[in-house]
Amino acid sequence: MMAVLSINTDVGEGFGVWGVGDESALLAEVTAANIACGFHAGDPDILRRTCDTAAELGVSIGAQVSYRDLAGFGRRFIEVPPPTLVNDIVYQIGALQAFARIAGTEVTYVKAHGALYNAAARHEGHASAIVEAVGLVDPALPVLCQYRTRVWELAISAGLLPHAEVFVDRGYTDEGLLVARSHPDALLADPAAAAARAWEIVGTASVVSVDGIRTTVLPEQASAVALCVHSDTPGAVEIARETRKVLERNGSAPVPIGPER
Amino acid sequence: MMAVLSINTDVGEGFGVWGVGDESALLAEVTAANIACGFHAGDPDILRRTCDTAAELGVSIGAQVSYRDLAGFGRRFIEVPPPTLVNDIVYQIGALQAFARIAGTEVTYVKAHGALYNAAARHEGHASAIVEAVGLVDPALPVLCQYRTRVWELAISAGLLPHAEVFVDRGYTDEGLLVARSHPDALLADPAAAAARAWEIVGTASVVSVDGIRTTVLPEQASAVALCVHSDTPGAVEIARETRKVLERNGSAPVPIGPER
Amino acid sequence: MMAVLSINTDVGEGFGVWGVGDESALLAEVTAANIACGFHAGDPDILRRTCDTAAELGVSIGAQVSYRDLAGFGRRFIEVPPPTLVNDIVYQIGALQAFARIAGTEVTYVKAHGALYNAAARHEGHASAIVEAVGLVDPALPVLCQYRTRVWELAISAGLLPHAEVFVDRGYTDEGLLVARSHPDALLADPAAAAARAWEIVGTASVVSVDGIRTTVLPEQASAVALCVHSDTPGAVEIARETRKVLERNGSAPVPIGPER
Amino acid sequence: MMAVLSINTDVGEGFGVWGVGDESALLAEVTAANIACGFHAGDPDILRRTCDTAAELGVSIGAQVSYRDLAGFGRRFIEVPPPTLVNDIVYQIGALQAFARIAGTEVTYVKAHGALYNAAARHEGHASAIVEAVGLVDPALPVLCQYRTRVWELAISAGLLPHAEVFVDRGYTDEGLLVARSHPDALLADPAAAAARAWEIVGTASVVSVDGIRTTVLPEQASAVALCVHSDTPGAVEIARETRKVLERNGSAPVPIGPER
Repeated sequence: MMAVLSINTDVGEGFGVWGVGDESALLAEVTAANIACGFHAGDPDILRRTCDTAAELGVSIGAQVSYRDLAGFGRRFIEVPPPTLVNDIVYQIGALQAFARIAGTEVTYVKAHGALYNAAARHEGHASAIVEAVGLVDPALPVLCQYRTRVWELAISAGLLPHAEVFVDRGYTDEGLLVARSHPDALLADPAAAAARAWEIVGTASVVSVDGIRTTVLPEQASAVALCVHSDTPGAVEIARETRKVLERNGSAPVPIGPER
Repeated sequence: MMAVLSINTDVGEGFGVWGVGDESALLAEVTAANIACGFHAGDPDILRRTCDTAAELGVSIGAQVSYRDLAGFGRRFIEVPPPTLVNDIVYQIGALQAFARIAGTEVTYVKAHGALYNAAARHEGHASAIVEAVGLVDPALPVLCQYRTRVWELAISAGLLPHAEVFVDRGYTDEGLLVARSHPDALLADPAAAAARAWEIVGTASVVSVDGIRTTVLPEQASAVALCVHSDTPGAVEIARETRKVLERNGSAPVPIGPER
Repeated sequence: MMAVLSINTDVGEGFGVWGVGDESALLAEVTAANIACGFHAGDPDILRRTCDTAAELGVSIGAQVSYRDLAGFGRRFIEVPPPTLVNDIVYQIGALQAFARIAGTEVTYVKAHGALYNAAARHEGHASAIVEAVGLVDPALPVLCQYRTRVWELAISAGLLPHAEVFVDRGYTDEGLLVARSHPDALLADPAAAAARAWEIVGTASVVSVDGIRTTVLPEQASAVALCVHSDTPGAVEIARETRKVLERNGSAPVPIGPER
Repeated sequence: MMAVLSINTDVGEGFGVWGVGDESALLAEVTAANIACGFHAGDPDILRRTCDTAAELGVSIGAQVSYRDLAGFGRRFIEVPPPTLVNDIVYQIGALQAFARIAGTEVTYVKAHGALYNAAARHEGHASAIVEAVGLVDPALPVLCQYRTRVWELAISAGLLPHAEVFVDRGYTDEGLLVARSHPDALLADPAAAAARAWEIVGTASVVSVDGIRTTVLPEQASAVALCVHSDTPGAVEIARETRKVLERNGSAPVPIGPER
């Protein structure tokens, strides 16, 4: 059985006068929009407009939840007590849900942002806070996260259905993590090469690291794989378009991420 | 036909370490909890706990929406562009809705806080933003506001069902507005006197001002009257209790505020 | 006696990941940098870097003080109690002073930003708060403001030495105010034309409005005139350069704004 | 040679409507006021008033600097990049300096708050950020910190003069750290016992832990020892008063903390 595939990207990451431009070209190439909810970026005007655009384009809306850290764009680990983090995440999802409903649709998945995404790979309390928050809001919402992380394991244990995430445009370490942005091979700038590698990852459940080691990044029988294109990678629109085409050509056209009820 | 009566009060108005104490004694005497949503007060932990307490006590949960102004506790007028204010209000209601649902209930009404409440009495753009936001989220949600204000008129025009609000514990001007807190008769500290006056207001649709003038504060055939007890008035619990008793004694026991579908 | 002339511009108006690019090209053409202090824009990293750049280029550092309003970029009037506004302004100046000193220089003037600048033209309490704050911090610091505004009058009364500000790149109303940005003649995009008009304003103490009326915008014997080039006007660098050249050609080279002790 | 002794306490830790009461009774018993600078608590009104009170009472003013974390009261570790932390600290000191000067005095020392205080004991980057920030602002300002911590060592290396801090009202671990607040012996509530122990610590350079182990907490020839009374410990005023009396009785009356030029 082939995994269900989706392509996601981060959008709506402005604040106030520091707005975001027209993101519809990028959104037209993906199937899932990770929308900032106001804690690392995203003010209510931006949430409204971004939900509207995603809804018009038939792109599913995901809550991109973060530590409360506008000054640091959610890129700094914060030792939030897990019960507080649960509520911080619920708050963000709830706010986004209101705008999704006004746009005639709903929030259909959750993805952690930045430092929280990274922390949840290993940090018991923060991984578990994400899982608990989603369980409280709606256990049918998939959580996007990397395979073999703590949040993946806890999501499975809690009866949630995590989507295994792989990164189309970024180099991997031997351990299946992303190499630092300072690494010469951190970015895969060539759209065709990035798309080809994405398809290879899906087919082999593994990726070749920047050091030439093949490492497993997907479960053997992944039911759902989320392909991420970073919206701030140069050429993101082209990378997303090429990835979409490669998937379509191979009979696995990417689809929106829906709740699994 | 007698109006449906409710008693509301502001709760959850702390932030972080500046928490709120146990508000269950006060909540036990009212039927509607105006819960701060994070813009003037209220962090996610407080929203969670306050929704839980309100739900346990069978008190209806209202979104107490505000200008974005933590430093000023929402007490300062801010010339927010109305379209932005619409989205600010939607965001706050949405966030609170998530916690209300987790508590097994829902947000059943909306009330503006502080400077926004006051501005909406006269400010066309801000009165209309409240009405538009509620219409977008759920037109069945009553809006608590004073009779003969701009927001009251616009709510009626938009097909919403505003609840006419009167203040149990505060002195009125000849125009039916609240006298400044610095006025010697600003506060009605005696619970029995406050409760008796509340009942008189309901019965006569009018109040006697601090200068002895009787002024209309309710529509002639009010379908729903919201009696407000300020939670920061000394003796608020006793005032709420006496008011409740007077209403019960007169066969008009206060009830929660529900959506009007 | 000719007025002392300066050219100022707003810089450092980013926040966190929403940074500012290299502003040294613009700073090289002006003599005074209005540096955002953190209330409408400007985080400590940006303050540090902008002070360093200004100091290196010999440009004087002004505190661009604002209402506390990151979400609205200080462009929304806020009814802050004047005593609080005094302290808000003191706080911002103090923070910037620390970075100016580290850069080997000092804060040498104060200019209100956005809605506060506009409010101070007519709002007694807010005009007076600016004057009081500057008086508390250092009465030798010039305040940049428009002639014939309330803040101008109060600054004179308080013994401060306001610098009369005129706008190089913007159209004026008959009353000597800026026309709304939506007006077709709101912007003077041609550098040479803008610079020529600037010089004419200085020479005649008046400007021709977009409707052809000549109106007074400078006192008859202005001792100090501050020419403002908006950093977000397209071609701001060229406008500043042309303005500087015209002044130099006429023997009135612009100079930094210094404290007047 | 006897060490110079001081008694410090945290003040000004409110925000907006969540103000602080009259802290003059506590300030009257100490010699050094750690004033919150706005990042974990403390708005400009509070900074102003607290500086005024400290100045009137002849108590020295210290900048109590923190991570940017109003929601968490600075009690949560944040992985701020050290260069950003340097600037965050400079910003806070600068803001406080403006109010100290208005009160006719100056900021004479620096103390980290909460999670930053704790992190600086071991975290190389954050310990070094504190030292670098103080060096940039004024190397004559003492830094209050615990002996044998990383920030102590780096301060010595940088040529700063750290004051060794001990806690009057809290139980210690065998390692010379504070026991968790949940420990039954976390608080020393009896003023006389706390004061007596404080004097014993000063005399022996060591403390007996809650488990009965004597552990070194001061350098052998400490030149300056800062005795801290937590303002939120019940009976803080009495503890401070008793401590002051014991020091006075022993001929070592506590003195304000001054810059060491």
